[in-house]
Amino acid sequence: MIERLALIGVGLIGGSLARALRGAGAVGEIIGCGRSAENLELAFDLGVIDGCTRDPAVAVEDADMVFLAVPLGAVRGVLERIQGRLREDAVITDGGSVKGSIVADAAAVFGEVPARLVPGHPIAGTEHSGVGASFPELYHNRRVILTPLPQTDVVALERVRTMWQAAGAVVTEMDVAHHDHVLAATSHLPHMLAFGLVDLLARQQDNDEIFRYAAGGFRDFTRIASSNPVMWRDICIANADALSGMLARFGEEMTDLAETIRRRDGDHLLDIFSRAKTARHAYVDGVSPPKPEQDPEQSG
Amino acid sequence: MIERLALIGVGLIGGSLARALRGAGAVGEIIGCGRSAENLELAFDLGVIDGCTRDPAVAVEDADMVFLAVPLGAVRGVLERIQGRLREDAVITDGGSVKGSIVADAAAVFGEVPARLVPGHPIAGTEHSGVGASFPELYHNRRVILTPLPQTDVVALERVRTMWQAAGAVVTEMDVAHHDHVLAATSHLPHMLAFGLVDLLARQQDNDEIFRYAAGGFRDFTRIASSNPVMWRDICIANADALSGMLARFGEEMTDLAETIRRRDGDHLLDIFSRAKTARHAYVDGVSPPKPEQDPEQSG
Repeated sequence: MIERLALIGVGLIGGSLARALRGAGAVGEIIGCGRSAENLELAFDLGVIDGCTRDPAVAVEDADMVFLAVPLGAVRGVLERIQGRLREDAVITDGGSVKGSIVADAAAVFGEVPARLVPGHPIAGTEHSGVGASFPELYHNRRVILTPLPQTDVVALERVRTMWQAAGAVVTEMDVAHHDHVLAATSHLPHMLAFGLVDLLARQQDNDEIFRYAAGGFRDFTRIASSNPVMWRDICIANADALSGMLARFGEEMTDLAETIRRRDGDHLLDIFSRAKTARHAYVDGVSPPKPEQDPEQSG
Repeated sequence: MIERLALIGVGLIGGSLARALRGAGAVGEIIGCGRSAENLELAFDLGVIDGCTRDPAVAVEDADMVFLAVPLGAVRGVLERIQGRLREDAVITDGGSVKGSIVADAAAVFGEVPARLVPGHPIAGTEHSGVGASFPELYHNRRVILTPLPQTDVVALERVRTMWQAAGAVVTEMDVAHHDHVLAATSHLPHMLAFGLVDLLARQQDNDEIFRYAAGGFRDFTRIASSNPVMWRDICIANADALSGMLARFGEEMTDLAETIRRRDGDHLLDIFSRAKTARHAYVDGVSPPKPEQDPEQSG
């Protein structure tokens, strides 16, 4: 049971966690902190938070759990602001899509990464943002990856794990660098392709017509290009090394594929497409994860 | 009203058209032609076709409408086989995703493109294939693009238009080269990126784990990588010039984007992501097409 949760950033991610914990009776009081008075007011009206402030230092007063759900570029500033203002037993965790950066930010601000900081990442989200888009079921049966360090306090780790389980999530652990590599591949890289494709097409002369004839597959493919640009700028910078390497390699492969197509090398094309179809079927559609981890989006 | 429809290729595209036309009472008899006896038997059992043959020349006997729904690489062979076997007033049309190639195939086989050949392309489909995946509503409110040539017979054009309208589609016309450019951008290019991404990730050492942590966005993004590899090989070759040019340009842009990320150039990243979000919203989600053309997949 969390007595007082300080929610630094009250959007889709933070708002959904608050709603889930409240629904599960797993939290006493929730204090929201954000920069937009309008959004905080909406969060209050929706019953997501019990009180609010625009100052992180005020938000964390007496909080036994602090959840950071701000764009990655804002994390260091928040840590600087809350330093020395935390309850002694307060646990800090976050929902960022890159884990190396919060570790670096914490080390820079606190001198070393605090034992009660547990970096975390819920693999969930939609292309919408803001507390109005939050909903309590966002984390149901979704994976949450925690990336504890050697110095991480086991009690703090356990408290964060319990919190996510109360929200309906399936919690696993991973090494910080490995997490950032896996996420670069499965999330950050696809977002770059979707943003890049829509941007390329929007710059074509007949873009009106191009988008008019876009069918369902294109809509699915580019839906993630509607995601929050500031959040994605920060993710790119926070995971720059892993992501830029992978994206550069993908760029080269597409240049090669273009040449294969130009040469009309049918055998090579068939190899690539068959391998991809088999891999997607085996890994994404064909292999059911264990029951409690089933993904509602998997079918269809 | 079509007296006798010859369906050359009885899969998702041909089978769905047959089912829609039968449901609308717009067709008398339907003869299916394909290479797989098993698939033809299934088509017969499902009531999609009334008779079947494995020889296109037999299938088109007495047919007043011939619909080609075979992979693009098989079109020329079919045209060679049916040459001289067609009823004098028979109209030929097709469902291929590239229109320049059927025009070239027809010119090569017949000496010039026949006046009664009306190249066409329904912008519809799923990642599944085979007659078992066909359903009569596939074309409901979906666009069909016809690309008539100067010599195209107006009566033949009108008959094809009427056929698609009976299947529930919204018919428009476009120039052959323009069609192939627009489709390269909205369909062929996204498919290359999805195939390429899944293939790249499948070749990573920790691919098991990478796919295990793939979230909903990745599933949506890569769904089209489950499409039929032979069909896509043929599309690539048929639209090689337009597609390879666009893909090469995309490859370069991704290489540039990788460098922008490596440099941690946040302003540039924000520009790209914001432009893409705005474009996708304006063109794909924000602008509702006229009522009869609404896309059921547009919401969500």
